[in-house]
Amino acid sequence: MAEQAKSDGNLRLRVDPHNLRTTVQKILMHVGVPADDALTGADVLVKADMMGVESHGVSNMLERYVERFQADIMNPKPNWRIVRETPGTATIDADRALGVVITPKAMEIAIEKARNVGVGMVTVGNTRHLGMAVYHAMMALEHNMIGVCMSSVRPTVLPSLGSTVRLGTNPIAVAAPAGTHPPFVFDAATSVVPDNKVDIVRRLGGNLFPGWIGDENGTPIMESVPAPPRDGYQLLPLGSIPQTGAHKGYGLACVVDILCGGLSGSRYGATRPAEEVAHTVAAYNIEAFIEVDTFKQQMDEWLQTLKDTPPAPGNERVLVAGQMEWEAEQDRKANGIPLHPYVIQWFRDTCAQMEVPFNLD
Amino acid sequence: MAEQAKSDGNLRLRVDPHNLRTTVQKILMHVGVPADDALTGADVLVKADMMGVESHGVSNMLERYVERFQADIMNPKPNWRIVRETPGTATIDADRALGVVITPKAMEIAIEKARNVGVGMVTVGNTRHLGMAVYHAMMALEHNMIGVCMSSVRPTVLPSLGSTVRLGTNPIAVAAPAGTHPPFVFDAATSVVPDNKVDIVRRLGGNLFPGWIGDENGTPIMESVPAPPRDGYQLLPLGSIPQTGAHKGYGLACVVDILCGGLSGSRYGATRPAEEVAHTVAAYNIEAFIEVDTFKQQMDEWLQTLKDTPPAPGNERVLVAGQMEWEAEQDRKANGIPLHPYVIQWFRDTCAQMEVPFNLD
Repeated sequence: MAEQAKSDGNLRLRVDPHNLRTTVQKILMHVGVPADDALTGADVLVKADMMGVESHGVSNMLERYVERFQADIMNPKPNWRIVRETPGTATIDADRALGVVITPKAMEIAIEKARNVGVGMVTVGNTRHLGMAVYHAMMALEHNMIGVCMSSVRPTVLPSLGSTVRLGTNPIAVAAPAGTHPPFVFDAATSVVPDNKVDIVRRLGGNLFPGWIGDENGTPIMESVPAPPRDGYQLLPLGSIPQTGAHKGYGLACVVDILCGGLSGSRYGATRPAEEVAHTVAAYNIEAFIEVDTFKQQMDEWLQTLKDTPPAPGNERVLVAGQMEWEAEQDRKANGIPLHPYVIQWFRDTCAQMEVPFNLD
Repeated sequence: MAEQAKSDGNLRLRVDPHNLRTTVQKILMHVGVPADDALTGADVLVKADMMGVESHGVSNMLERYVERFQADIMNPKPNWRIVRETPGTATIDADRALGVVITPKAMEIAIEKARNVGVGMVTVGNTRHLGMAVYHAMMALEHNMIGVCMSSVRPTVLPSLGSTVRLGTNPIAVAAPAGTHPPFVFDAATSVVPDNKVDIVRRLGGNLFPGWIGDENGTPIMESVPAPPRDGYQLLPLGSIPQTGAHKGYGLACVVDILCGGLSGSRYGATRPAEEVAHTVAAYNIEAFIEVDTFKQQMDEWLQTLKDTPPAPGNERVLVAGQMEWEAEQDRKANGIPLHPYVIQWFRDTCAQMEVPFNLD
């Protein structure tokens, strides 16, 4: 919308979230995705932008998705099916569905199962990129449930003590509702940093922080160095080195690999074809364990206690998981989603080429 | 057994695991624990020693347990009950039961639920020390299930950016069966290190590793320093500092706090009475998701791939979670459990005082 297309400090233009969502939907429809699936996928991408998680928003992901649909790496009209099911679980073969489309369906199934038997857990194999993991976990919130989502992805991370990547950045996301406070919304890779943090340093200059990466032989780089080229480094697991718990980040990445790849029957990070990933979602029905009001009241008190923690010297405040994203979302609701002019231009060009109406200016 | 009471390099004496288990059982019975519960508790402790996890074995825990039973901090004959239940979940009020006694019961319930509906999840509130978390998770293995166990414990860990402890070391344990390989057995605190690692350095001399602790104001100590007194430091969450992912260790500790304290209704780490903790266990029935043989075959291949990873320079081999513990167990099965002479002496004195037969020499 023209009145929102104002520049911020970083030369970003603000676009209307609703317009962005429908534009993304129409682009996905153009590459063959049915309208309702395209809307779901668009919502996952735009929600990431709303929360300030640009790495998983439209600017970073949509062009890749379009390319992969056009290259037939992803199936826009998947014949996905439940290949095994119990009252509390299901295993989905996604028929190469994009994760941002199939994972919300998996989460809906998990939520329904949790409504019936207290807990639901659904694995998704033969699928593609998940999008922002916590989107799917957050779907549980409005049902007064705790949501979990994880994904086993292509190997870029060293096992502790190893010289060769064996694991993905394998994120773990957990969302839990509160009463008056915004929900607890946790979403983290099990590596110290994801690849794109290294990319950003390479692009902007400056140095990597010690403990982010290993060199080409797997030796952790514990000095501050410029970002090596993409093939000149390997990510370290959370904990960085054995002395500070690298076996813990490594072990957590393994857990994700087992629960996603193992339980979906779609192999594991180190051996799967590059584009193929596996996801697992779960929903825990709070009411199955405790009164919802009691739980939420305690969550509010707990969140307040954490937020009230006096900061250590040099810090302004103590944050809780999801707080910065919630604050970003308030800003974007009021002022629109900031996009770089070249992203707007990509939309303009792509819409023209696809004969999709362009309304982001 | 006399023939096993030989010294190893560290002046340890080797004792027979069976004799140790029955001795521990009788000591627990002397403080009021019924025979079958005492055997369960003894098995949890001795299993930790078998796996080389001395921090959770007899030498470190039994004396504390005895003291706490005698001080009526723990209830030897708890009237524990399920306060809420669904086909896939249960919430237990443990009536101040020791965790090593009540958590195996909770896990049995979770396993039974997973047999019926694919997944089972049980929270335990109003309870005491868990023992080795992965003992309970490992109970799932013989049922061809994946086991999970976590515990929210007293606050000793700083939130990222904070000056005051708000979270426990809140461990996460996951065990998954393989075919011919030993199982995957992961058990880790969500802090960089547990308290007892600092204690050991203080006792033996030497320095702490940078990134283990914060000072009394919460500032992370990123140099190598001697161990401060117990009240002169605070543990750091996994990731150590914000630049290397401290928010991730902090967030994972929060997840444990929510799933254990929140879902059991027994408050949370920062506010609970010191001895009161909360546990959550879960079992995932592999057969509910995928053929068990297919899963185990893949686990074997996956474990082999990880073990075959060429080590980074300076390392001998790449380990998988549980491998060192499995190797320790083979040694202890063959040669007995190594105990320090002063631990043997404590058993001798305690058995004499309690009129329990002593057979560890």
